[in-house]
Amino acid sequence: MTTESRLTMTLGETMFTQRAIRRFRPEPIPDAELQDILEAAIRAPNGGNTQPWHFLVIRDPDLRTKLAELYREAWWAKRRDQGIMGPQDIPPGKNTMRSAMRLADQIGQAPVMVLLCATSQGPAAAASIIPAAQNLLLAARAFGVGGTITTLHADVDDRVHELLGIPAEAQVVYCLPLGYPRGTFGSVQRKALSEVCSYERWGGS
Amino acid sequence: MTTESRLTMTLGETMFTQRAIRRFRPEPIPDAELQDILEAAIRAPNGGNTQPWHFLVIRDPDLRTKLAELYREAWWAKRRDQGIMGPQDIPPGKNTMRSAMRLADQIGQAPVMVLLCATSQGPAAAASIIPAAQNLLLAARAFGVGGTITTLHADVDDRVHELLGIPAEAQVVYCLPLGYPRGTFGSVQRKALSEVCSYERWGGS
Repeated sequence: MTTESRLTMTLGETMFTQRAIRRFRPEPIPDAELQDILEAAIRAPNGGNTQPWHFLVIRDPDLRTKLAELYREAWWAKRRDQGIMGPQDIPPGKNTMRSAMRLADQIGQAPVMVLLCATSQGPAAAASIIPAAQNLLLAARAFGVGGTITTLHADVDDRVHELLGIPAEAQVVYCLPLGYPRGTFGSVQRKALSEVCSYERWGGS
Repeated sequence: MTTESRLTMTLGETMFTQRAIRRFRPEPIPDAELQDILEAAIRAPNGGNTQPWHFLVIRDPDLRTKLAELYREAWWAKRRDQGIMGPQDIPPGKNTMRSAMRLADQIGQAPVMVLLCATSQGPAAAASIIPAAQNLLLAARAFGVGGTITTLHADVDDRVHELLGIPAEAQVVYCLPLGYPRGTFGSVQRKALSEVCSYERWGGS
């Protein structure tokens, strides 16, 4: 059996039932499934097949607790950059932000955190590894494992590097909590395709 | 029948047989399949479900020819930034670069070009739409349609905007040629997972 043969969910079901999972049950992800998820991630396209990515997988409870504290600080630093100083400043109707705020409090409950790193600095290096994040989340979905794409913040960058021994030349692009979801996967709400797609010229149908 | 039910290839086969396709047969992609490919793309995760993407689909032969000329100019502008002034400067063994150079000459042969745009400027906006590019390419693969992720260059940016009526506030993130491949899909060469993955700390196994 290979990773390829174990990812038996159809592409349609996987993509159409992928959604951001931000609340996790504590059960660990079996090693074999975690390995398959990572094997799928590294099949993603990347510039010139340079594979400029590094997957840092954190399962140790003590490290996850420390990383979760830094994550929470980073989440509020990002909100502060937007002028949101506390929960009272989150506009009504911003349910995704409230859900993300809860994740910032509870991310340490996810049994696995993957820091998806680029092996060099700069936005081009970061962009080159993002398709691998989507492969990772799709493969996770196929095993019933949920997660979501999150970022850190410059305020905590040095401390995250130090905590996990990340080389100075590498950058943490995404912080991906993974685990079995509390609640269910399900379809996502999207604008109609016709609103975000043009033919021949912008605005053409 | 829905897009979800038409994407019947398993996730494993799709991911493990996805590779960059840079040589295309001239046959058009049926409208229904192109629509399904785009419907799959917009299921991708994105920050706060803001869906800050726009898919500009170019099939008109005259527009494709004009865009192909700009693409070729952009490709060589990127090489010039690397100190590569012509084919004679491409180092031996850089097969991916030679293949990309051929694509720069022949991209107009792809029956469809998708410009994947972000609706605002800046690297964060660009990053937010990259998972949709990977969904698009995976869904294309499931229909036997190939493509590859390419970028343009600042030198041609204004002219691309003008040619296709792209608003100033939007940015073209990727230029994705799509079509049925000359040759076959097949597995990709990747470093072993153990070379690009650590546990608990960078370098930890």
